[in-house]
Amino acid sequence: MIIDRLFDAVAERGPVCVGLDTSSEILPEPFCARSSLPEAILTFNREIINATQDLVACYKVQVAHYEALGVNGLSAYRDTIAELRRQGALVIGDVKRGDIASTGAKYAQAHFSGDFEVDFVTVNPYMGSDVITPYVPYLQKGDKGLFVLIKTSNPSASDVQDLRSGDRPLYRHLAEQVARWGEEYRGEHGYSLVGAVVGATHPHELAEIRAAYPSLFLLVPGYGAQGGGGRDVAPAFMDRNGAVVNASRSILAAYRGKPDGEKRYAEYAREAVIRMQEEILRWLN
Amino acid sequence: MIIDRLFDAVAERGPVCVGLDTSSEILPEPFCARSSLPEAILTFNREIINATQDLVACYKVQVAHYEALGVNGLSAYRDTIAELRRQGALVIGDVKRGDIASTGAKYAQAHFSGDFEVDFVTVNPYMGSDVITPYVPYLQKGDKGLFVLIKTSNPSASDVQDLRSGDRPLYRHLAEQVARWGEEYRGEHGYSLVGAVVGATHPHELAEIRAAYPSLFLLVPGYGAQGGGGRDVAPAFMDRNGAVVNASRSILAAYRGKPDGEKRYAEYAREAVIRMQEEILRWLN
Repeated sequence: MIIDRLFDAVAERGPVCVGLDTSSEILPEPFCARSSLPEAILTFNREIINATQDLVACYKVQVAHYEALGVNGLSAYRDTIAELRRQGALVIGDVKRGDIASTGAKYAQAHFSGDFEVDFVTVNPYMGSDVITPYVPYLQKGDKGLFVLIKTSNPSASDVQDLRSGDRPLYRHLAEQVARWGEEYRGEHGYSLVGAVVGATHPHELAEIRAAYPSLFLLVPGYGAQGGGGRDVAPAFMDRNGAVVNASRSILAAYRGKPDGEKRYAEYAREAVIRMQEEILRWLN
Repeated sequence: MIIDRLFDAVAERGPVCVGLDTSSEILPEPFCARSSLPEAILTFNREIINATQDLVACYKVQVAHYEALGVNGLSAYRDTIAELRRQGALVIGDVKRGDIASTGAKYAQAHFSGDFEVDFVTVNPYMGSDVITPYVPYLQKGDKGLFVLIKTSNPSASDVQDLRSGDRPLYRHLAEQVARWGEEYRGEHGYSLVGAVVGATHPHELAEIRAAYPSLFLLVPGYGAQGGGGRDVAPAFMDRNGAVVNASRSILAAYRGKPDGEKRYAEYAREAVIRMQEEILRWLN
């Protein structure tokens, strides 16, 4: 099962997930003179992948940054994913799609086969269990997984996710539903193919969800540039596993203000990953 | 303001929105022999557009069907939108994106400029007001609009949207937030650039939201194949305006089982639009 591969990757290499949220704002200056932006992004991503692959659990590719550049941008998304998979890396497509079942089936096809095939996708649960249904055939085969948004890292997450219903906030109801949706698809370590997204900016909620739903593997965004630190994400873990922590800007743009940064960006990214890994593992016992 | 153009389109041509949810399952048999599926889809879309453009308020293009075919599919999405805009039609990109502000800015760029530029996009509100923020500069200019998911047409919408918080279900809280987000961006008829999606399968909720939030222009999916009829969508309207009703399969596949259907699919689509228009207007007084 793919979730067991993710578990093993965390056990072997630690819980860092590198977010390839690559855009013109992230690229070192010299890249801007290149033939085309999508090509420059792909080249940059390749270097980052090569410099970090032996250190990380997985990669998360945020499709919005590629979609913003239109069809050519999505070619770079396709080629970035292909490069990652060619190297045997695990890939989360951060697409946050979620739709009625017939449409959802098209999203499942889009991101679990063909050009954009990844190992995991993020899913938005606002439309209820219908957003999961189209993925069921893939879950049954065991080679694909989901991370469903529960409590996101952004400031306004509370607008909707913290509305109280009965004795609990909405995100707790969602966590329960997500755990139930994934019950049947558990790997050898007890984690389900249907995991959850909980932001690093919410350590209390991480602890709460970790304790209440031990089958949920957690994808934890919001580390670094968004404010979460090693101490904040520690509650996401159980026996140093069961979660991956994503950082993007703090790794991709680690070269900024460093000696020879614009040339040695890949080295600095590697150093940033090592620091992040140490900072997280320091709090796990 | 773009919402005034949509209002005028409904006033002139009625509230039908044709959903170009075009996939291999929808195409007439002979199309399957064509050079490539994305090209076949584009050709089919062009014919449907030509046959219906003088009858409809707008088009909604569901990106999932194109995304499922990878980069070439998204080229067909781009070209379908370009064809619609070339003909002066109003276009809703049914993308249901929604993310943290920095990522959302990329989605705004993706769908309000460049290859995939449309007039309106659908937005998923699970992450709160941050999903709206990146669109504000476009709303301020007045030439773009949003439809935010409130109460969707699918069976499991109730899983999340009907959870009660205080004295009201979640979707009512959302409707209130959406109306507030859009308060500043109202056109000459009082409708906001920030509208709402409420499914045709929920006539009671349509009536409730129409009455409570008169500034919300409504996008009503779920007509036809999903079960909603003219009587069901009537509560969405105020003075025969303020809403568009989307149908896709019942229009695109109207040719099925008809004499010479596989050749005359565009004619049958036109007939289906006329019938739908009559069926809706019959209930509006």
